[in-house]
Amino acid sequence: MSRLFKMAEIGATSNGGVYRLTLTDEDKAARGLFSDWARELGCSIEVDQIGNQFAIKQGSYSSAPAILIGSHLDSQPTGGKYDGTLGVLAGLEVLSRLMDEGVSHKNPIIIANWTNEEGARFSPAMIGSGVFAGEFSLTYAHEQADSEGVSVKEALNKIGYLGNGGIEKNIKASFELHIEQGPVLEAENKQIGVVTGVQGIRWYKISITGREDHAGTAPMHLRSDPIRTMNAMISDFYAMAEVHQPEAKLTIGTIKTEPQSINTVPGSVTFSLDIRHPDETVLELMHNEILNSCTHKYQDVKLEPLWHSPHVPFHKGCIDAIENAAVKLEIPYKKMVSGAGHDSVYISKVAPVGMIFIPCKDGISHNEAEYASPEDIEAGLSVLYEAVKSMIK
Amino acid sequence: MSRLFKMAEIGATSNGGVYRLTLTDEDKAARGLFSDWARELGCSIEVDQIGNQFAIKQGSYSSAPAILIGSHLDSQPTGGKYDGTLGVLAGLEVLSRLMDEGVSHKNPIIIANWTNEEGARFSPAMIGSGVFAGEFSLTYAHEQADSEGVSVKEALNKIGYLGNGGIEKNIKASFELHIEQGPVLEAENKQIGVVTGVQGIRWYKISITGREDHAGTAPMHLRSDPIRTMNAMISDFYAMAEVHQPEAKLTIGTIKTEPQSINTVPGSVTFSLDIRHPDETVLELMHNEILNSCTHKYQDVKLEPLWHSPHVPFHKGCIDAIENAAVKLEIPYKKMVSGAGHDSVYISKVAPVGMIFIPCKDGISHNEAEYASPEDIEAGLSVLYEAVKSMIK
Repeated sequence: MSRLFKMAEIGATSNGGVYRLTLTDEDKAARGLFSDWARELGCSIEVDQIGNQFAIKQGSYSSAPAILIGSHLDSQPTGGKYDGTLGVLAGLEVLSRLMDEGVSHKNPIIIANWTNEEGARFSPAMIGSGVFAGEFSLTYAHEQADSEGVSVKEALNKIGYLGNGGIEKNIKASFELHIEQGPVLEAENKQIGVVTGVQGIRWYKISITGREDHAGTAPMHLRSDPIRTMNAMISDFYAMAEVHQPEAKLTIGTIKTEPQSINTVPGSVTFSLDIRHPDETVLELMHNEILNSCTHKYQDVKLEPLWHSPHVPFHKGCIDAIENAAVKLEIPYKKMVSGAGHDSVYISKVAPVGMIFIPCKDGISHNEAEYASPEDIEAGLSVLYEAVKSMIK
Repeated sequence: MSRLFKMAEIGATSNGGVYRLTLTDEDKAARGLFSDWARELGCSIEVDQIGNQFAIKQGSYSSAPAILIGSHLDSQPTGGKYDGTLGVLAGLEVLSRLMDEGVSHKNPIIIANWTNEEGARFSPAMIGSGVFAGEFSLTYAHEQADSEGVSVKEALNKIGYLGNGGIEKNIKASFELHIEQGPVLEAENKQIGVVTGVQGIRWYKISITGREDHAGTAPMHLRSDPIRTMNAMISDFYAMAEVHQPEAKLTIGTIKTEPQSINTVPGSVTFSLDIRHPDETVLELMHNEILNSCTHKYQDVKLEPLWHSPHVPFHKGCIDAIENAAVKLEIPYKKMVSGAGHDSVYISKVAPVGMIFIPCKDGISHNEAEYASPEDIEAGLSVLYEAVKSMIK
């Protein structure tokens, strides 16, 4: 907790949050503090060409695969103290406790701080873990620019984190401890979420064309009112989501009529649809139902798929290690999927991955009011420690 | 038709429409042309303090109540040739035919061109007829300014139409010939609409408060999603409108979610509701159902009434005169209410009023594509002529 609060002083906002956009002076200071702490625990520091920072504690057998623990130190513009930071500092805690308890280990233990997880300054998000996993090329990542036109490469250079080191992708297991960023654990009174993967996501833009008509002079039976069609479609969509509860999620975030006039029947209406499900088969089922709705059941509807991020399952060995730890420690837990993306999604492409969630108050995150209790943090750390210990030899 | 096309040259747009905002140089030119034509038919011209223009053809008995025929010569920024203009020029046609047929009349016949019917340059609309009827004070009307800060009084002065004349409110009947601005007559293949009044209108803004949640991490059963409430309300509202068909009209013209983010459950949604009915009792019934829906049936809903314009019935004597004319001429007609407002609404407060509608193509109006056929215009003029003739002695 003292490390967490010390770190939160860097970029601290007046409302108790953190302003620590990636590759800024605040981020540089946070990286420096992390390095200092890691060196105190006997780690060496490596930085790769996208600025990912690795604190490496060598094991007794140099070619043994590493145990990776990591997350990110960057924040949203008005972010909280816990998102990302917890997962990096947790690595220091695990290391410290292993040393305190005199646990020897053949495997190197590596604590990672991934660059630009948030995507708040540079797009895309998770660029550091994405490059590490080969999802983005280094050139592409370096060329991305912020709103002022500063590129990732320039920003890396400016704060002295355009490295030339790195680590081998010889990884036995990778763990990320993170706040849930949702209300489920709190609502169900569980201290640990054993994350089995990240749910699949599909985004759509749906446009319905009608005919503009005067609200006063066009009789209703002569209208082609797109709001009626939307009304029927939305009812169908919620009913479909109901069938796949409690795991399906369906969100209509934006609706726009054209023209926006009180006394004109809209000529068109456009709305967004966000559907998610941990089971790719069910997501596909929902997708097909939406497709059918837009192309056959209703008229004058245009469906535009915007994004599809398939379900990412985490590694059974890592999931089991986490679950076993919770069982052993008698901490109430729940197996669940992550609703949001994390560095672990990309890392899972090159290493066995597991994630541990702990509750956050009211599910609030990306917000200065973000809060996780010391008790829950301790539970998360204990589970992480046991999971790591079960993996090392 | 030649007068109509000549008039349409003033402010003609490249797409066949008219730009003739009130009290502009174009409006001045249109007023001048109207005066010239009226004088040729033996009229004297009076202009009152709000710029209403009256062409007066005296009858044989000086104190007999007048027969008023009128509408407006101003247009929307990209308006059509027929809206308003037809009703003014129709007065000239009636006068001309009375003279051609040697019909003598005790009652003076007055052709009115009301200032700023459209409300496109100055708000409120129908300001000229409104002042004439005592609905707005002259001071209030003079103070209204356009988007450049020019007041009605300044604009009147600039084009030389701040008059000091006018007419007495000694009116036996007032007639307005107008395009329907809706699709009903065309759809039902009728040439004449015998307008019995203007329907009542109520406008509302309805806001539903929910809770912002992450589309990926908040399970659906823990959400407070305002879109669900809105969708249920909209279903109810359409069902309610169905009960009162074919006369009820219900329009949802604008919908806005906050924040407008694809992957955030909206914290709130606001939509507009426009309801209309020719029978004030039914409008009240619908109003009460909406009120109940917003205050009892659904939660976290705020209903904000924006406007209520009660049903205005026209004068039985005038309605009968128009209907009898259509019967006599064997022109297919339909008794109907006007969905839009007209100068006749205000005039009805100080005189017996009747309106005649003719079809316009596809119900299109306030648009350069506005069109009424010469045959329908002739039918409208004949009915107007017969109605006026039936009133004069």
